[in-house]
Amino acid sequence: MSGADAVKEDRLWQRHADMAKLGGTPRGGVNRQALSPEDAAARNQLISWAKARGFSLFADTIGNLFIRKEGTDPTLSPVLSGSHMDSQPTGGRFDGMYGVLAAFEALEALEDAGIRTRRPVMAVAWTNEEGSRFQPGAMGSAVFAGTYRLDDMLGQKDWKGVVLKDALAETLAAAPAPLREGAPGFAVDSYIEAHIEQGPRLENERRTIGVVTAIQGSRRYIVTIDGEEAHAGTTPRAARKDAYAAATRLAAALYEATTDADDTLRFTIGRVEVLPGSPNTVPGKVTFTIDMRHPEDAVLARHEAIIERLVGEKTTPCAASLQKVTNVPPTHFDPAVIDLVRDKAAGLGLSHMDMPSGAGHDAMHVARLCPTGMIFVPCERGISHNEIENATPADLAAGTKVLVEVLEALANR
Amino acid sequence: MSGADAVKEDRLWQRHADMAKLGGTPRGGVNRQALSPEDAAARNQLISWAKARGFSLFADTIGNLFIRKEGTDPTLSPVLSGSHMDSQPTGGRFDGMYGVLAAFEALEALEDAGIRTRRPVMAVAWTNEEGSRFQPGAMGSAVFAGTYRLDDMLGQKDWKGVVLKDALAETLAAAPAPLREGAPGFAVDSYIEAHIEQGPRLENERRTIGVVTAIQGSRRYIVTIDGEEAHAGTTPRAARKDAYAAATRLAAALYEATTDADDTLRFTIGRVEVLPGSPNTVPGKVTFTIDMRHPEDAVLARHEAIIERLVGEKTTPCAASLQKVTNVPPTHFDPAVIDLVRDKAAGLGLSHMDMPSGAGHDAMHVARLCPTGMIFVPCERGISHNEIENATPADLAAGTKVLVEVLEALANR
Repeated sequence: MSGADAVKEDRLWQRHADMAKLGGTPRGGVNRQALSPEDAAARNQLISWAKARGFSLFADTIGNLFIRKEGTDPTLSPVLSGSHMDSQPTGGRFDGMYGVLAAFEALEALEDAGIRTRRPVMAVAWTNEEGSRFQPGAMGSAVFAGTYRLDDMLGQKDWKGVVLKDALAETLAAAPAPLREGAPGFAVDSYIEAHIEQGPRLENERRTIGVVTAIQGSRRYIVTIDGEEAHAGTTPRAARKDAYAAATRLAAALYEATTDADDTLRFTIGRVEVLPGSPNTVPGKVTFTIDMRHPEDAVLARHEAIIERLVGEKTTPCAASLQKVTNVPPTHFDPAVIDLVRDKAAGLGLSHMDMPSGAGHDAMHVARLCPTGMIFVPCERGISHNEIENATPADLAAGTKVLVEVLEALANR
Repeated sequence: MSGADAVKEDRLWQRHADMAKLGGTPRGGVNRQALSPEDAAARNQLISWAKARGFSLFADTIGNLFIRKEGTDPTLSPVLSGSHMDSQPTGGRFDGMYGVLAAFEALEALEDAGIRTRRPVMAVAWTNEEGSRFQPGAMGSAVFAGTYRLDDMLGQKDWKGVVLKDALAETLAAAPAPLREGAPGFAVDSYIEAHIEQGPRLENERRTIGVVTAIQGSRRYIVTIDGEEAHAGTTPRAARKDAYAAATRLAAALYEATTDADDTLRFTIGRVEVLPGSPNTVPGKVTFTIDMRHPEDAVLARHEAIIERLVGEKTTPCAASLQKVTNVPPTHFDPAVIDLVRDKAAGLGLSHMDMPSGAGHDAMHVARLCPTGMIFVPCERGISHNEIENATPADLAAGTKVLVEVLEALANR
């Protein structure tokens, strides 16, 4: 029996259902933010499943959780697969969790099929990919890859002032048995991450497998507009410095300037704060975030210049400033891994297409360390970061079959 | 010595300084929201001053605080003057407080001048004029005038869920000595309210006294836009139902449609909420408030129809709704009181001008009960509902001199 044949669709689906209960929301999504009690519960669930299968476990000091299926030559560097288990505040059941459960299903399938690979095969659950509670996102994989310094991350605070170091200690202490902990980072032969597409392309083109060639670059900004609070009933418009009227002029110009013919540029204003927030007071201050993404760094740079110009032009008589928060350049995956994913999908008779990833993933950091690739499966209407996010058991299993075949091939190289 | 001569500019200014300490903010304003501990402290300060002068005091069951200087014929209905002591979250030191302290200074001035009027003269501090903690505003005067029902108001909750009835009980219980309490409303001969203009006209036209002829009408709305949360990195613009992009299109159209040649229409978007408020999630829901005011009700009605149309037109593909929260028609003050204010200002040699009030005031409710008028004094650059709100001791005293003369004339009619 091949590894792919040993993938159990029902088992994989049931594990998603079990995990969805941890931080589950009334609308059917999950609120399982990084290093919360819900995140700890998900980790402990995974740990118990791993122990039941006799796999060895350990965590590193940023909280990344590793599960190891030994190879015939334990001295060789392992092939790694996984994703994250934390979610957005109003997140879905598959974002990240699928990549972790697919990797774990792959380990089980290889075990069930009695397949021993030369290299160890490992599953990983990276810490804090979403970055909605603790900034920045993709934290665990970035520390593992040496992109961020461990000490800097341990000192991060959430909006309540909780220090990450303390939240992490609580999370690890909640484990059923003490985990062996090591410093982040070790030699990895290759990395492959399965994930729902989080976009509509696979569904629209009726393909089951997305062969991910790259991750688009992303830049995030905070715009601050300072006006002047005034009485809404008495202050003539000519005498106002209305921060929200200025924000509206700017936002309208930004939406227009970021409209591209092929609808590839992603531009989002996601968080907006208007102060003092009294219905009968002219707003004196507005801050909002900009999230902009594109596969080509040059396109991002060109639009950043346009944004800088518009921030200055459109906000008079208010004062405005643009602060760049993050700048993640595009990631291009390893050609050999890309080919392998495409070949295995074809070999399994699964419809597939090459595509870049619209979202950032842990793979973008790990790609700095070793040959890396990703496997996408469709999600309903492309909706993600939403409690109604959905995917089919068959598509999840199909992606996992491709994953098992790719892992086996990589682990026997 | 006339009542006007007995007005003490220093005493009036010092009382403003003393009150500004109660709820004072680092930027020199006040945060003294209705029925808060700061509001209670201001009430107790006023009570102690009144007791020191031997004036009688009582409160009604919505918390309006009355101070009485007896007349030669106690059986006659009193002449009433006052305003409010509660403030916006980031409010100024003079909005409302000036009208209360001017009325109290008027009582003291009449007393100091040894003037006994036929009718009693009373000062009042109305409960919750701002309406920023408990909706609706001008609550105390509206209950006094029978516009709102007492029981409805007692059941109102603030954003933390605190019931007004409980906050009011705490506030009254904090008084140094128990106050006699009565049901809201009693026969009033006439009402005159002093207030800072909260607009720039008096300063621009270099006049000291505003003879207020009317209060413009105001309508308040809440706009709700329902879109769909989606991943900011993956969802093409064509596939988005971006509630904030829709809100921006709508707001831009609203600002344009409410621009009038003579800059008389007041249009403000003061509170905006964008959900879920995550930088990398396309907003799924936006709500914002509209505050619109004009001296002519027909102009408000015409623009309400335009707003209704634009809410429907500009928000596709999102769903949007417009809810009317309040509709206060314009108030026209009593011609005799208006003439009296103008004559007394002229008699005191003070520059003056007739003008409508841009802001709503407690006077708009009391005007339903009895002949009513208002006296405006300038405030710096017309700025109000702002911590930097400012006025001069001389202007405050000038307005109080007019107030004393008007009160004396009304009380001897």
